[in-house]
Amino acid sequence: MKTLMKFTPTSKSKRILGIDPGVATTGFGVIDYAKGDTMWVDHGIITTKAHLPLADRLKQINDELTALCRTYQPYTAGVEKIFFAKNTKTAIDVAHARGVILLTLKQLGIYTHEFTPIQIKMTLTGYGQADKHQIQMMSKATLRLAEFPHPDDAADALAIAICTAQHLHAFESKI
Amino acid sequence: MKTLMKFTPTSKSKRILGIDPGVATTGFGVIDYAKGDTMWVDHGIITTKAHLPLADRLKQINDELTALCRTYQPYTAGVEKIFFAKNTKTAIDVAHARGVILLTLKQLGIYTHEFTPIQIKMTLTGYGQADKHQIQMMSKATLRLAEFPHPDDAADALAIAICTAQHLHAFESKI
Repeated sequence: MKTLMKFTPTSKSKRILGIDPGVATTGFGVIDYAKGDTMWVDHGIITTKAHLPLADRLKQINDELTALCRTYQPYTAGVEKIFFAKNTKTAIDVAHARGVILLTLKQLGIYTHEFTPIQIKMTLTGYGQADKHQIQMMSKATLRLAEFPHPDDAADALAIAICTAQHLHAFESKI
Repeated sequence: MKTLMKFTPTSKSKRILGIDPGVATTGFGVIDYAKGDTMWVDHGIITTKAHLPLADRLKQINDELTALCRTYQPYTAGVEKIFFAKNTKTAIDVAHARGVILLTLKQLGIYTHEFTPIQIKMTLTGYGQADKHQIQMMSKATLRLAEFPHPDDAADALAIAICTAQHLHAFESKI
């Protein structure tokens, strides 16, 4: 992914990991945050195969997320909360992965913020009913990316990371 | 818990751990199985406090389940599958804990069988619509317990352990 501006991390920048949980596909987005500004670092997906037992898939998510955290050493993380009105079977699948992700981050000592989909939309666009395209436009603009981040799960994870950074900024501004 | 018969584990008996997952209360039941017979070993619950962050509660379940497995060294485990028709919020809560439990057992190298509530009822009573009392009666009789196991989550976990043992027996009989 090309960015329109070179970014050199400083000792004052904080690394933030955004995660969009799922058993088949977990999206991740890594950004650096300093003085209210955010910069793209990486994004991608962890995928597991449907024919494997659920326990094996969850262990793979745990292993790959642990490796990702060892590589990027995030200061904090943001994870989306589950929206109950969606398909129940999907929500239950996501919750299995989400439980494992919250545990993994806790075991690594990374404090995790939780946001509802509406909070994420509100934070990024100021509008709680924003659609996927509006969110991606804001992520692209905020991180000064040359193109739209993809796939969707990784783009969602970047939006969660930006949301976490903005909450961190609001919190720090109050101190 | 008093049993009506003394049981001396032999080198041929296999220890089975049954688990009824939940964030607030996870029930566990430990039994020994040998030659188609089952014997009670222990049962109880892991409880977490509602005021704690979800990640802390999931880590506590992971820690206590790991300690339980180190104590009892189960050969295999059985975990209930989530029944979708129930309350969605409850199902999502259970799935967070269930994901962590499946991961914990996988990390400890314990193979886990998964059963639907109907499979458990069918296996114990021969009737898929059996009520809680009928299941508890069968658990008490099968394990030759002097009284009904309680609380309910631990009793359910013992029923899952018995179901796992009976499936193991059916499998071994085919070899």
